[in-house]
Amino acid sequence: MLPTCVGIVGLGLIGGSLGLDLQALGVKVHGLVNRPQTANRAKERGLAQVVSTDPEILGDCEVIFIALPLEKLINPPLEIVNALPRKAVITDVGSVKAPILKVWSQLHCRFVASHPMAGNALSGVNSGQNALFKNRPWVFTPDANTDSSALEIIRKIASNLGSHCIVTNAEKHDEVVALISHLPVLISAALLRTLGSQRDPNLIKLSQDLASSGFEDTTRVGGGNPDLGTSMATYNTSAILKALSSYRWNLEQIEGAVISENWNQLNEELKYTNLIRKDYFDNSF
Amino acid sequence: MLPTCVGIVGLGLIGGSLGLDLQALGVKVHGLVNRPQTANRAKERGLAQVVSTDPEILGDCEVIFIALPLEKLINPPLEIVNALPRKAVITDVGSVKAPILKVWSQLHCRFVASHPMAGNALSGVNSGQNALFKNRPWVFTPDANTDSSALEIIRKIASNLGSHCIVTNAEKHDEVVALISHLPVLISAALLRTLGSQRDPNLIKLSQDLASSGFEDTTRVGGGNPDLGTSMATYNTSAILKALSSYRWNLEQIEGAVISENWNQLNEELKYTNLIRKDYFDNSF
Repeated sequence: MLPTCVGIVGLGLIGGSLGLDLQALGVKVHGLVNRPQTANRAKERGLAQVVSTDPEILGDCEVIFIALPLEKLINPPLEIVNALPRKAVITDVGSVKAPILKVWSQLHCRFVASHPMAGNALSGVNSGQNALFKNRPWVFTPDANTDSSALEIIRKIASNLGSHCIVTNAEKHDEVVALISHLPVLISAALLRTLGSQRDPNLIKLSQDLASSGFEDTTRVGGGNPDLGTSMATYNTSAILKALSSYRWNLEQIEGAVISENWNQLNEELKYTNLIRKDYFDNSF
Repeated sequence: MLPTCVGIVGLGLIGGSLGLDLQALGVKVHGLVNRPQTANRAKERGLAQVVSTDPEILGDCEVIFIALPLEKLINPPLEIVNALPRKAVITDVGSVKAPILKVWSQLHCRFVASHPMAGNALSGVNSGQNALFKNRPWVFTPDANTDSSALEIIRKIASNLGSHCIVTNAEKHDEVVALISHLPVLISAALLRTLGSQRDPNLIKLSQDLASSGFEDTTRVGGGNPDLGTSMATYNTSAILKALSSYRWNLEQIEGAVISENWNQLNEELKYTNLIRKDYFDNSF
């Protein structure tokens, strides 16, 4: 059974999308936002039945999603923490799990660390959309002290939203997102910086004229939201440095084949990376 | 005025697409392929009015596109070179220009080096499609000896196919494609290799479960056709090594901000890369 009343703190992409989908499942949704203007827009968009800037609206909620940016999840506003009912199940949506779990396991006995992996380039009160979580992974990172009945309640909701539920530990999660999500941002940004560091204006103009889908795809995440990239790095520093170090070593192996003009080796490398990608995305190319 | 009869050597993605578009413009197309089976399929698909494995069919052509892979453009089969009429205008479609221009300027007095930038992940006789060149750049890299009337004839055809014609020199072209096309392949391959070099099976499984659009986009070109990547590196080695060296330096600047935990600096870096990308793709994000 789904809860009768769910609270959502923050009605941005994740929070707003949760509000739409949960209402469609017949759940009553209370949305807490920090500005009256945002509250008006959230009401217009129907992101929750009740929208307010007063944390008191969380009082009746059995389950509460804290759908705030990473910084605020790790340094949560006291007025929100104090408004959370002790009996409610609390969960978050943060993209780095170990520091959140560390903070929140001290703040609430029914906290469940979770990460719905459904982000896109959008943010803000206008970005919430239906079915954002459908067929997307939703990761849970309980520790030994996590209340298992609370975990089951959030898993059930995630399943009802169409997500694939995955349970792992926070450190493993953070190590994996460093490799598949945070590292791509930095290496993609470095590619853009490489073009930005060129000094010949004719070369720059020509590169802008000729850049096509390969460059567009490879630079997409490095040209994304700067604050999101910075906060990932701030809270997942050691895993990202480990990933970067491994990346540099792997790049050197490929560069080595080019330097030594060992084209058989380069061809083997590219056959290998072609195969690796098939383990990730079956039907690509 | 367009030529009456055009020859195309090779009816793969570029050659086949040229055949379809040129016929649509009322030009007679003679297609030369190397295998009877390919000829049959090309006839079925209507890629040319005349399709043959006999180079003699090039005898009547006023313009001939050599639409072969890079290796064969740089080491062209003698029977093809010998079949090219001396009066015809000859052009190629290769993605690296300096080595092609060096070879072909010795082989034919009306050779025009050109690069229609319309590749995609497809290849072979089944891949040719209508309107492939529309709104795409088509680069010409004449040198001091290039016949300017021959250049004008190819430019006119490219314009009629809807391409944006760009004239530059071969070295500048090769330097730019190293940065925007070949470098992305290698840094994207290095990201896949980084995942491939992980040894913890649980981490590998989890990364496959969690990888989403950011990883998919960033690894697309590195997981592409291995032979294409190898041939780019083989024939554009020095420009690629220069691009890789610049890339490593730029990556170190970004990594330096993470190592020193200078989050303001990292944020400035990512604001900068966000802006750079807007110079390339106006309406992204």
